Amino acid sequence: MKLTILFGGASFEHEISIVSAITLREKLSSFNLTFVFCDQDHTFYLIEASKMKATTFSRGEYKKMPKLSIANGAFIQKGLFGSTEYDATVLNLIHGADGEDGSIAALLDFFSIKYIGPRMDASVFSYDKRYTKWLSHARGVKSLKHEELSLKEHNNIKTPYPIIVKPSRLGSSIGVSVVKEESELDYALDSAFEFDSSVIVEPFLQGVKEYNLAGFMANKKMHFSIVEEPQKNEFLDFEKKYMDFSRSSQVLKAEISKELESKLKANFEKIYKNMFEGALIRCDFFVVDGEVYLNEINPIPGSMANYLFEDFTNCLEMLSNSLPHAKRARTNYEYIHSISKAKGK
Amino acid sequence: MKLTILFGGASFEHEISIVSAITLREKLSSFNLTFVFCDQDHTFYLIEASKMKATTFSRGEYKKMPKLSIANGAFIQKGLFGSTEYDATVLNLIHGADGEDGSIAALLDFFSIKYIGPRMDASVFSYDKRYTKWLSHARGVKSLKHEELSLKEHNNIKTPYPIIVKPSRLGSSIGVSVVKEESELDYALDSAFEFDSSVIVEPFLQGVKEYNLAGFMANKKMHFSIVEEPQKNEFLDFEKKYMDFSRSSQVLKAEISKELESKLKANFEKIYKNMFEGALIRCDFFVVDGEVYLNEINPIPGSMANYLFEDFTNCLEMLSNSLPHAKRARTNYEYIHSISKAKGK
Repeated sequence: MKLTILFGGASFEHEISIVSAITLREKLSSFNLTFVFCDQDHTFYLIEASKMKATTFSRGEYKKMPKLSIANGAFIQKGLFGSTEYDATVLNLIHGADGEDGSIAALLDFFSIKYIGPRMDASVFSYDKRYTKWLSHARGVKSLKHEELSLKEHNNIKTPYPIIVKPSRLGSSIGVSVVKEESELDYALDSAFEFDSSVIVEPFLQGVKEYNLAGFMANKKMHFSIVEEPQKNEFLDFEKKYMDFSRSSQVLKAEISKELESKLKANFEKIYKNMFEGALIRCDFFVVDGEVYLNEINPIPGSMANYLFEDFTNCLEMLSNSLPHAKRARTNYEYIHSISKAKGK
Repeated sequence: MKLTILFGGASFEHEISIVSAITLREKLSSFNLTFVFCDQDHTFYLIEASKMKATTFSRGEYKKMPKLSIANGAFIQKGLFGSTEYDATVLNLIHGADGEDGSIAALLDFFSIKYIGPRMDASVFSYDKRYTKWLSHARGVKSLKHEELSLKEHNNIKTPYPIIVKPSRLGSSIGVSVVKEESELDYALDSAFEFDSSVIVEPFLQGVKEYNLAGFMANKKMHFSIVEEPQKNEFLDFEKKYMDFSRSSQVLKAEISKELESKLKANFEKIYKNMFEGALIRCDFFVVDGEVYLNEINPIPGSMANYLFEDFTNCLEMLSNSLPHAKRARTNYEYIHSISKAKGK
């Protein structure tokens, strides 16, 4: 299968995306892969597979590689004697801003390039944790009670300690802190507000059971990964999650009852359907007293959560054969014709 | 002031956008205007001001005009001897799909082009009437009770007649019908589902008071238009609204109490703040028993609702001096460096 891996982006998770792409290069070695790098200035570069290593980017060597522009149906490499089109289906592997906020989705849809990844609406509802709450509420999926803070409301927090403080719009635990008592609050808020003008506060549930489940829809059916119980160090901080993005070996299945597994899948499906079609996403859940709560949605999980699937390449093939099409509206200038007629023009 | 008017789009409201642009050409004659047309295939064209008439588009004459590409900071016209950049602030005047669904916003933000219009998130919440309900609920603004239908639930409607049936994602009354009894339902649903796979049903309030209010934020303050009481023909159907888009003379202020005017403004502000910054929007409200209900949000109203403002050109100038910036995240490859070090590479 032909696939273009799009990675990088002007995002705090820029480096994570590079690590994800390098990991998938190995994991998808049976595919015919093209690598397109989006740098922090939003310039696209074609990266040879053999150059897919971290130093190509950290040392700026990518700047010597061919630039690409985006046009209807393809990324284009212009040469002296004509241009080459890269028109394979794109795997959107840009984590965080650009990739997960809906920008890349809008861009690819606008230029009619097929892609694996969340569409624009789905991105907006998963990227901003405030809107994820609205989505889960509307879909009948429980989530923890939360408070929203903007810069000027530092001192009105009603949630009892310990609390968790998160920027509304970042993934990979960037800017997230657990706050056990008031003396730690200022520092936590400073860290969170460094990354976003909106911050959410939730109760921090010590020792809560946490389960991750990935899945996607193909051939009108849901396909699920195994359920993972992530290792915890209070919560996965940035460095831990970062290393997590390079994982490629399968993890152990969580030891949970069939009943709980069904509950997790049912909640996943409520969130996914009529929203995330075209994407392979991971939902992270809490389980409290047997009740399932949505913690967050990762619409482009690190390395596509490949380690949670038994036959990952087959999953990507199925998904890429079930992508939604953006239908363009057409007009026949009927109204302008009728006005022109009425005016005698 | 320099301003690029971007209009057209692959939208059922393509023609409306052309009419809007032609109207604003007159209304903004004191500005230094550039016209960029997006055709139904998403190709951009530079249109000379003198060619801004309906037949340029309906007869396909625009195809002979210079093509533009979009790049960092500007629309670009490539010529034999170099290229010309059109880097003025853009007024996004594409109604319906592309313009109001968030695609154009994402595109302009991605390429760092300043624009007047709703940002991507704001577009998603105003374009889809289902999500507008979530937004108004979260912001404490009343809206009518509704039901959501997908293709297969024709017969489960619980709202008593008369009802109004609308595609979830279109503006300008396209596909909208008032249904007084069950015998009319099938036809109404067919019309609505022709345009969208999701339809919403609301009670139709005969003779309800309807008020339109436009506004925007500039210099950290809200600026409001007069309140208009639209003329009604049950509801404004497509042709009526269409003609409405070419309006340029001021309408009469609705005769309402100061108290109601304040209530309308307070509700508008709840919807606008922390969401629609950068846009001049129009909110359409119902008033029932003195209570204000949000009917819908027009994030790019026809002809920018110029007829509701006393000094429209001044409004656009103020707004264009208060546009939000999309801040790009930067990385310094710190994590990759630290990993490389740990690995001894």
